[in-house]
Amino acid sequence: MQLDDLILVSIDDHVVEPPDVFDHHLPDRWREIAPRVERAEAGADVWVFNGAKVPNLAINAVSGLFPEEYGLEPTAYEQIRPGTYDIHERIRDMDANGVLGSLNFPSFPGFSGRLFATLDDKEAALALVQAYNDWHIDEWCGTYPGRMIPCIITPIWDPEAMAAEVRRTAAKGAHAVTFCENPTKLGYPSLHTDHWDPFWAACAEEGTNVCLHIGSSSQLAITSPDAPVDVMIVLQGMNLVQAAADLAYSKLFAKFPELMISLTEGGIGWVPYFNERIDDTWRVHHAWTGADFGGRMPSEIMREHVVLCFIKDPHGLRTAREIGVERICWETDYPHSDSPWPNAPERLWEELAGADLTNDEVDLITHGNAMRHYSYDPFRHIDRADATVGALRAKAAAAGVDTALRSSGRPIPEREGPLTIMDVQKVATA
Amino acid sequence: MQLDDLILVSIDDHVVEPPDVFDHHLPDRWREIAPRVERAEAGADVWVFNGAKVPNLAINAVSGLFPEEYGLEPTAYEQIRPGTYDIHERIRDMDANGVLGSLNFPSFPGFSGRLFATLDDKEAALALVQAYNDWHIDEWCGTYPGRMIPCIITPIWDPEAMAAEVRRTAAKGAHAVTFCENPTKLGYPSLHTDHWDPFWAACAEEGTNVCLHIGSSSQLAITSPDAPVDVMIVLQGMNLVQAAADLAYSKLFAKFPELMISLTEGGIGWVPYFNERIDDTWRVHHAWTGADFGGRMPSEIMREHVVLCFIKDPHGLRTAREIGVERICWETDYPHSDSPWPNAPERLWEELAGADLTNDEVDLITHGNAMRHYSYDPFRHIDRADATVGALRAKAAAAGVDTALRSSGRPIPEREGPLTIMDVQKVATA
Repeated sequence: MQLDDLILVSIDDHVVEPPDVFDHHLPDRWREIAPRVERAEAGADVWVFNGAKVPNLAINAVSGLFPEEYGLEPTAYEQIRPGTYDIHERIRDMDANGVLGSLNFPSFPGFSGRLFATLDDKEAALALVQAYNDWHIDEWCGTYPGRMIPCIITPIWDPEAMAAEVRRTAAKGAHAVTFCENPTKLGYPSLHTDHWDPFWAACAEEGTNVCLHIGSSSQLAITSPDAPVDVMIVLQGMNLVQAAADLAYSKLFAKFPELMISLTEGGIGWVPYFNERIDDTWRVHHAWTGADFGGRMPSEIMREHVVLCFIKDPHGLRTAREIGVERICWETDYPHSDSPWPNAPERLWEELAGADLTNDEVDLITHGNAMRHYSYDPFRHIDRADATVGALRAKAAAAGVDTALRSSGRPIPEREGPLTIMDVQKVATA
Repeated sequence: MQLDDLILVSIDDHVVEPPDVFDHHLPDRWREIAPRVERAEAGADVWVFNGAKVPNLAINAVSGLFPEEYGLEPTAYEQIRPGTYDIHERIRDMDANGVLGSLNFPSFPGFSGRLFATLDDKEAALALVQAYNDWHIDEWCGTYPGRMIPCIITPIWDPEAMAAEVRRTAAKGAHAVTFCENPTKLGYPSLHTDHWDPFWAACAEEGTNVCLHIGSSSQLAITSPDAPVDVMIVLQGMNLVQAAADLAYSKLFAKFPELMISLTEGGIGWVPYFNERIDDTWRVHHAWTGADFGGRMPSEIMREHVVLCFIKDPHGLRTAREIGVERICWETDYPHSDSPWPNAPERLWEELAGADLTNDEVDLITHGNAMRHYSYDPFRHIDRADATVGALRAKAAAAGVDTALRSSGRPIPEREGPLTIMDVQKVATA
């Protein structure tokens, strides 16, 4: 196998919603309450919703910008790459990166769609969730069949309504949903209650994979506000270790044997350690904690039910068999700052060279697992020969996709010494 | 090499302070303010200090009890193994576990000695810290030369006084100090300020290793109060990943090139992933964050300055060379619930069998690194032939050390279903 022969599906990228999200799918009676984009000032577009301005129009959408500018949170469409919000441009950017398929998470509604929960009128809020999903499935994913994997949001304030939306969208072909890695941080009951059972049941029955993205509880691990921002970045994946521990000792998989969950952007290299830790905790402590896995080990159960993914993770690839090759997916995180776009294939190839995997295993990790876990079949629409890194990049080259780095146009402010978490939070909320 | 030939030094165990800690080392003028043990009620001894009762007399001191009873926080000396608070019994328990040397952390003063900071009279507080250290060095560690590695506490409210105490105790042979993995959680400035510089400087100059034990900021990662307590246990080691990220991107090692820090009870199996993550974060983000390691990679610097340890960690041993064999130490965590006492050698042997390490590497991990990093030389006092697992256990057998599990005598309350974090916190504070 050569680099150009890889077929790449990324299960974690992001859409910056264009201004017309609610133009074609929202019933007229809710027109007035639809979020809309306003130009607040030069270089600042904001979503206006429910009487408030939502600042994160283009959260961390920095692919294609000079790395020196990553710290300047983009605040307007003109500052970001059109591939972030325009599906035609997105496909061109995917081609240039050799990526066949992509699962996209939302930006301004929050990873779990929590924004819509702020509306008192829950009927209206549900209409917005549905319109968002219809836009996502029909327009964002539907324009180029076989290229995008739909991932829906849900009305998180009502588990029965969540279940109904999972079923409604599954009927339209969507088999991934973005939820929250720790609902208690958003003020909802934990994974250890029965509260969410209708939702889990619907996902299990419909084969809809529940994606828990880092930061989806709207919190990241922060050691102290004056720590270098790098500390927060280093720890991003580790946010999901807590969710993994919750899942491992939850009743979810005993109650819903068909349920599948993804830990998105959590990386994989920590999993061999974690597997041993959850099993040893059972061995040493179950006599007093009462933990009971029906004669099995928690790591076995996790291996069957929890999908993992990585952007760059050489140690994880070297230990892929220990982790479970059949549950490892790949991601590019476009257009966020950790994304290796447009050089993701080269980076992956280098890491695969350091791992001792068969071609079949590589195929699973690069696309086979994503196809199975998210009920995604690009080959109904696209010939395999046209789906490879080489073929897609040839298409991008022919179409003249320009991947040269550029400036967002915003001046970089003077600063003294390394940026702290506090500095970046000031920029983000400015 | 056979199991009986191992020489084992544990760099993380715990002392439950006996009632006479302050009897012989506190100047008479402070006699009135010394913490003292009182019997609050049947089966409940408490330390009384500064007008308050300190409940954690014997925090998690469960070695030797039936595992079913681990959840019942011991509250009195009569409930715990005498080896936890009596040095003669401790040595017998170490012999039975084949352990030559042991570094002990405090119990009731808190890992960082923060209890004494609550006293308004800081002169008196300093006298207590010094008396505690003198008891620890002269009595707890001094009674059996070559068996215990001293580890001091400091007056954390005053970095200059901390430095002075580091120097005073280094002169007495103590080259380890227990500090706090994130001082901001205790209300002090972070590792990223200059606040602690006198302390770091003294440690660097005196060759005193700064130990950051899990929970030393008095916080553990908790996902939600209703999560099974197992979730909290699983995540214990991961608490130190945050400290590791802080250290990696701090200025500490640039400012104090001789400074050595230990991440205590953090495990090691997550480190290969973490090394790659801190380096990749630098590569991808330094252009905007300003992170600067003078042309080196953060993982290289961490490898030189950060000592790690494990209780049980097969993946970590399999990847020991990636982690850095020269910085991995071993621990038994006696008398806490994760401790494999009295079978620690068997457990370690089994894990070593799964790792491909040379005898020299095994020697480093089992005792060589601990000797070097904590300036500990047991062989000035004890012949190597008398220091092995086999020799120590033969001595314990001859002395009739009884390692049979026993009950603390407290009845186990009825309960429904697995214990939650909340349940255990109720027991701990009852």
